[in-house]
Amino acid sequence: MMAKNIKKRSIKSGLPPGTLVHIGEKSDREIKITVMDYHAGGCEEKEIKALKECFYYSDTSIVSWIDVEGLHEIEIVQQVGDCQGLHPLVLEDILNTDQRPKVEDYGDYLYIVLKMLRNEEGGGIVTEQVSLILGSNFVISFQEGMEGDVFNPIRERLRSGKGRIREMGTDYLAYALMDAIVDNYFVVLERVGERIEELEDEVVTDPRPETVRKIHQLKREVIFLRKAVWPLREVIGALERRESKLISETVVVYLRDLYDHAIQVIDTVEASRDMLAGMLDVYLSSISNRMNEIMKFLTIIGTIFIPLTFIAGVYGMNFQLMPELHWQWGYFACLFLMLTVAVFLLFYFKRKKWL
Amino acid sequence: MMAKNIKKRSIKSGLPPGTLVHIGEKSDREIKITVMDYHAGGCEEKEIKALKECFYYSDTSIVSWIDVEGLHEIEIVQQVGDCQGLHPLVLEDILNTDQRPKVEDYGDYLYIVLKMLRNEEGGGIVTEQVSLILGSNFVISFQEGMEGDVFNPIRERLRSGKGRIREMGTDYLAYALMDAIVDNYFVVLERVGERIEELEDEVVTDPRPETVRKIHQLKREVIFLRKAVWPLREVIGALERRESKLISETVVVYLRDLYDHAIQVIDTVEASRDMLAGMLDVYLSSISNRMNEIMKFLTIIGTIFIPLTFIAGVYGMNFQLMPELHWQWGYFACLFLMLTVAVFLLFYFKRKKWL
Amino acid sequence: MMAKNIKKRSIKSGLPPGTLVHIGEKSDREIKITVMDYHAGGCEEKEIKALKECFYYSDTSIVSWIDVEGLHEIEIVQQVGDCQGLHPLVLEDILNTDQRPKVEDYGDYLYIVLKMLRNEEGGGIVTEQVSLILGSNFVISFQEGMEGDVFNPIRERLRSGKGRIREMGTDYLAYALMDAIVDNYFVVLERVGERIEELEDEVVTDPRPETVRKIHQLKREVIFLRKAVWPLREVIGALERRESKLISETVVVYLRDLYDHAIQVIDTVEASRDMLAGMLDVYLSSISNRMNEIMKFLTIIGTIFIPLTFIAGVYGMNFQLMPELHWQWGYFACLFLMLTVAVFLLFYFKRKKWL
Amino acid sequence: MMAKNIKKRSIKSGLPPGTLVHIGEKSDREIKITVMDYHAGGCEEKEIKALKECFYYSDTSIVSWIDVEGLHEIEIVQQVGDCQGLHPLVLEDILNTDQRPKVEDYGDYLYIVLKMLRNEEGGGIVTEQVSLILGSNFVISFQEGMEGDVFNPIRERLRSGKGRIREMGTDYLAYALMDAIVDNYFVVLERVGERIEELEDEVVTDPRPETVRKIHQLKREVIFLRKAVWPLREVIGALERRESKLISETVVVYLRDLYDHAIQVIDTVEASRDMLAGMLDVYLSSISNRMNEIMKFLTIIGTIFIPLTFIAGVYGMNFQLMPELHWQWGYFACLFLMLTVAVFLLFYFKRKKWL
Amino acid sequence: MMAKNIKKRSIKSGLPPGTLVHIGEKSDREIKITVMDYHAGGCEEKEIKALKECFYYSDTSIVSWIDVEGLHEIEIVQQVGDCQGLHPLVLEDILNTDQRPKVEDYGDYLYIVLKMLRNEEGGGIVTEQVSLILGSNFVISFQEGMEGDVFNPIRERLRSGKGRIREMGTDYLAYALMDAIVDNYFVVLERVGERIEELEDEVVTDPRPETVRKIHQLKREVIFLRKAVWPLREVIGALERRESKLISETVVVYLRDLYDHAIQVIDTVEASRDMLAGMLDVYLSSISNRMNEIMKFLTIIGTIFIPLTFIAGVYGMNFQLMPELHWQWGYFACLFLMLTVAVFLLFYFKRKKWL
Repeated sequence: MMAKNIKKRSIKSGLPPGTLVHIGEKSDREIKITVMDYHAGGCEEKEIKALKECFYYSDTSIVSWIDVEGLHEIEIVQQVGDCQGLHPLVLEDILNTDQRPKVEDYGDYLYIVLKMLRNEEGGGIVTEQVSLILGSNFVISFQEGMEGDVFNPIRERLRSGKGRIREMGTDYLAYALMDAIVDNYFVVLERVGERIEELEDEVVTDPRPETVRKIHQLKREVIFLRKAVWPLREVIGALERRESKLISETVVVYLRDLYDHAIQVIDTVEASRDMLAGMLDVYLSSISNRMNEIMKFLTIIGTIFIPLTFIAGVYGMNFQLMPELHWQWGYFACLFLMLTVAVFLLFYFKRKKWL
Repeated sequence: MMAKNIKKRSIKSGLPPGTLVHIGEKSDREIKITVMDYHAGGCEEKEIKALKECFYYSDTSIVSWIDVEGLHEIEIVQQVGDCQGLHPLVLEDILNTDQRPKVEDYGDYLYIVLKMLRNEEGGGIVTEQVSLILGSNFVISFQEGMEGDVFNPIRERLRSGKGRIREMGTDYLAYALMDAIVDNYFVVLERVGERIEELEDEVVTDPRPETVRKIHQLKREVIFLRKAVWPLREVIGALERRESKLISETVVVYLRDLYDHAIQVIDTVEASRDMLAGMLDVYLSSISNRMNEIMKFLTIIGTIFIPLTFIAGVYGMNFQLMPELHWQWGYFACLFLMLTVAVFLLFYFKRKKWL
Repeated sequence: MMAKNIKKRSIKSGLPPGTLVHIGEKSDREIKITVMDYHAGGCEEKEIKALKECFYYSDTSIVSWIDVEGLHEIEIVQQVGDCQGLHPLVLEDILNTDQRPKVEDYGDYLYIVLKMLRNEEGGGIVTEQVSLILGSNFVISFQEGMEGDVFNPIRERLRSGKGRIREMGTDYLAYALMDAIVDNYFVVLERVGERIEELEDEVVTDPRPETVRKIHQLKREVIFLRKAVWPLREVIGALERRESKLISETVVVYLRDLYDHAIQVIDTVEASRDMLAGMLDVYLSSISNRMNEIMKFLTIIGTIFIPLTFIAGVYGMNFQLMPELHWQWGYFACLFLMLTVAVFLLFYFKRKKWL
Repeated sequence: MMAKNIKKRSIKSGLPPGTLVHIGEKSDREIKITVMDYHAGGCEEKEIKALKECFYYSDTSIVSWIDVEGLHEIEIVQQVGDCQGLHPLVLEDILNTDQRPKVEDYGDYLYIVLKMLRNEEGGGIVTEQVSLILGSNFVISFQEGMEGDVFNPIRERLRSGKGRIREMGTDYLAYALMDAIVDNYFVVLERVGERIEELEDEVVTDPRPETVRKIHQLKREVIFLRKAVWPLREVIGALERRESKLISETVVVYLRDLYDHAIQVIDTVEASRDMLAGMLDVYLSSISNRMNEIMKFLTIIGTIFIPLTFIAGVYGMNFQLMPELHWQWGYFACLFLMLTVAVFLLFYFKRKKWL
Repeated sequence: MMAKNIKKRSIKSGLPPGTLVHIGEKSDREIKITVMDYHAGGCEEKEIKALKECFYYSDTSIVSWIDVEGLHEIEIVQQVGDCQGLHPLVLEDILNTDQRPKVEDYGDYLYIVLKMLRNEEGGGIVTEQVSLILGSNFVISFQEGMEGDVFNPIRERLRSGKGRIREMGTDYLAYALMDAIVDNYFVVLERVGERIEELEDEVVTDPRPETVRKIHQLKREVIFLRKAVWPLREVIGALERRESKLISETVVVYLRDLYDHAIQVIDTVEASRDMLAGMLDVYLSSISNRMNEIMKFLTIIGTIFIPLTFIAGVYGMNFQLMPELHWQWGYFACLFLMLTVAVFLLFYFKRKKWL
């Protein structure tokens, strides 16, 4: 999973900065651009193909949210960027889906990068880069993948006018989008938590070689998660400190709430890491307990029968003069001797608590 | 335990901020609201059902403490919040019992979240969220659970007028409530300490597979404790720095004392972690010592009898011409040879310190 | 040891702040209060029973050092506190001998808490809380235990007038007391260092199950030491920064020296921790080396004799037609075959470097 | 690899500061000096032997980039240094190729040290020191090795005038060179990532002693990488903060981008470290699983046949009176007994889940 | 080694601050005091016995370097201190050779403590304390040991006037002395690096019990080195920040260079630590690989011969009626059966990849 991320990157080395290259999986589907223009009184929604249709309302009471799903057609992203006057490095970063979460202040607009997480069928975690451009009267969101429906509840709220969202500015919209992304982390972490619990049971009750593989796999995923989640603290913290004039004071309280959620996400990831760290040790001790049990059994069987077999061997020797062989009760005395030895050894093991 | 906490959370994703959803265990019992109005001269106590009965004394010398036990009826919490003009995000956080300990300044009031800890019957630790609203002439405490009697000594002190509590303001009451919560941590940590000591004995004297499970369980609980306890430093530190005008100077010295207690709690949790970290290693070495002892026994029995059995085997062969078999003392010479070999090996083991 | 510390604490939960409860071991001996009044010209010493005899010299050139040994009689501590106007929380902390080292500024006086360490007979480390009250013309020291003679050299210096101590103020006296305590740490750490060296030898030359127990015990003691020693940096650092006007500039250079010693103590504790951390691994590898040696021996004896015994078994079979049995040199050929197999195996082991 | 780096260094101890000693591998090839003078309108390129040909354009719109490949001829480096008035310590550091990445401000020029990384054939990583001197109208780059073609794309861009590079100043050129170096790290990290994945497979499916050696080798390389990569954060961060007036504001946004890349490189190195950390544990558990399987097989074969062989031994004894030997079906009864014992043991193992 | 350091210290506890006690090894040799007076034009060198001969040139253009080798005669150190007006605590610290590297500003002079490192014959590392007093026109260096020739190159440079040293002030001399000490660290670290490489080879190719002892020994030395080297960053950093007026601006660039070297030393020590940390694990896995190989051999030999021996045992029984014994080809059929069983088992092992 890691190597996959890195590979994507190296194809860019040697190119001048600002060169637009899409780093990520290719797709055949068409890019989908949705525009929602809203104000306190209403909301207009349209889906567009080319960006020439896209222009502003100079009236700042109208907020435009342009959502771009899919990044594989460079020209379209270029168009959007040119239309809004975005810096070439921003466009480059939007297309390079291997960014670290960050926030950058370009004066007229803020550029925010976050990671969306999704549980994969087979148990893994998939990330998808989301770039937000927060301007004074528009928000543009670029989503790497096409199947993200995390923003649907926000669209619904805009359509219905529920909550305060239509009365607030672009900063609140950006907050709402980030909140939707961070809230979704809990769904992913919940699945990780469940898998940890399953593994904890498996490790104690039924440790198998596959268990190690699973533990290792989950560890890798948590390392991966951590990389996506750690920078959140910094990003949201910077927004909350209102270093940009694009963030209004009324939104700060919401950002503080979001910051709390981010901290909680990080705490949970760290706790998962701690939990996984010790699990291999528990596995090894489970395995070594089993070995121990088997070894003990072998020892008992072995050490009881070895002397007995020796005695049998002695009386199987063919010396001419072996007085015991001619005693009447010799055979039974011999069997009795064997029994005595066996019982003695069993008592010895019992006393040593090996049995 | 962890997954349980996370699960609670994910049901909220997609909802607009400020939506009131109770995240926590449901209960059938009725929510209990207790109001205590006190001033230096006296104290009035009443239990109410609906909140319409709740209003202020404009006279600031009277302090009102409204204690709400149980959070499962959203309407009641909503009423309390509306009545005191609390921010929707505060109400949301009160209901969402999966908060991290924190303090938030809303100008007119401070919102403080803490975790109450309780030892469970079976050995585990249960947390319960306590939210405090500290206003200029009222304190509201929301307790998640219903069986918390940690605040009873404070109620008693208010009734009897013992100590300085009736002469002081809301900040002192909030301090007293936090102090009661933090003091209670020591009871929980004491039990953890005892369990660590029991495990330390068990690990050395009688290591069993269950021991690993217990160690792992305790480790998880300490990770859990740590999450609840670490943010305390920050929370109480922020209050002590008097960043809000609601904290008077006379209370700062008490908060400093509380801060010391919090640091001590954290230190103890960290020391517990350190102690537990090494315990699995001790377990493994105990187990491997046992294995060692058993292996040594097997080796000694095995290596002594294997050559003897071989000798017996040799003289059990049926070759026609085997001179030794016809010697008069052949049998006894053979037994003597065996004895010699056995004694030699025993000496060898002795010298090697394997015996 | 840890649980002992915690237990002491929990009995306080629920009591109002400022309630005086002695947390620590009880004692029957009478509390001993020694007062030394000194100035550049001389020194007066008296032992008192009740505190009514205790009053000040308004003349600030006379410094009074009141040393209280034993804390189990609450009334006496209460009297001392009342007489000097100490804050109830200070008295509470003096009696609660489970404090973390700290310094608190109460304006008129500084309250300093340190831990005195002592090697126990059996090898453990005992801590004893020392509280210092540093006023403008008096220093009060409260010692938990009764057998502390760490302060004796200072008393001697005061009596004899050696050094600068009689010419300096209360801040120098407080420094001298703290210096005596910190210097004493080196004695304790020296013993820890010796025990680590003994263990290092034992672990390599003669690893036994008891060794693990000893390592674990020492680890616990070092964790314990660390808790007592870490906060020193902060405490002495705060004094050195002269945050209180009670510390004169001439004493700062001495405090800096003390600070260096404290850092050195912390460094040594950390190095001890590092040393102990790896020791269990060395133990395990020693044990596994032994196992290895034993296993190799078993393998060699076993694998050499197993084929030989098989050969003997073959010629012990009772088939009617076994041509070899009737050969004249059959027996000796068989013995020779056995020898060849044994020698071959020995060579094989030699080549594999198992021998 | 590490010792190699250190060795180079110690030959300098005792020499006065500023003494020029080349620390690094010797080479026979001639040093190659390339000069590129460019401005918005064009670019002139020449290769020179001696530095007397090297002088400035006083016209600041012309930027000179002097690239020196190879450091083994001290005189040439000395000449370049004298010609540009570089501080002796700078020249010393350029020649000492064991520097840590750093940036130093000498007022008129900045001295920047970076490490270029290259994958070696055999799997290892080679570093090469690159020193940059950034003046107001010139940039000098000193490359340790001779086969570095990382700067070629930049040369190409200068020749063709593509991108903004010819319109920008020396700061942009220095940025472009650093960007080329950092971009190249991704190629190296990609290879490390692939090797980690290969190892992860090998560790689970086919753990061999060589695997440990490979893990250890890769760990060492990552430690090595880390040393080269960690200081980048500081270096680029310092440049981005524009502590020198040589950095213009337009370049800051590019440096911020570079800073992001550096952080990403560091994150990836840290994640690699985390991944490798657990791998040896997985290896050990794989090995112990195998041991377990083999041991179980041995136990089953052993414990089944040991009792059977004992029975055979008993009836091989030569006592005169052994009634069973004379029963008609004695032999078959004996074989049946053996079968019963074997089947019973197999059932026992089945129930214990050892089979 | 550690305990040795601590022991030295404890003899001081109880003594008043400023008491001069030499903590370190005693020596019979006479203390050697060398004075070098130099200015840009020349250098005068003399060796003195008593310090009465030591006085200043009021002319500040002359720099005096007084080098004291050996600290075991307290009177001489006392004389030097009195003559230059050093604080009693400084003299105490000079004699107490168990100091942590530090820098202290006494206004008129700086007191700098460093550790000189030397490889011992047997492989260990010896430290020696060097104290520097940097005044406005004199530098005094106190060396603990007598065989330090690290300063000889500086003496040579002073005599010959090579480099800038004679033209610069006392701050440059102090820098040169510190540089000589830090440069020498690379020699020591080089040896450590070589020993690590030797151990890495040994651990993989020929792991023996002694290897663990060596690893542990080297680990201890690196812990020890770390204690001596970590504070350097702080010490040189403080000097570089020019917190004292005794450091001139021209020397800052040299101190920055020295700071880089110190960071590099620390980095190398940390990398050594990282390398050693994993080595015991590699050792354990090497050992466990060997065990594995031996166990496999035992299993194969054992499991092949155990069934064969059983068959031989069966036909060695003395039942009267055993039809097989009387078959003509019975013996050969039996041998063939044994061969079949052996071959089958060998195939089985082959398929299981145990062979």
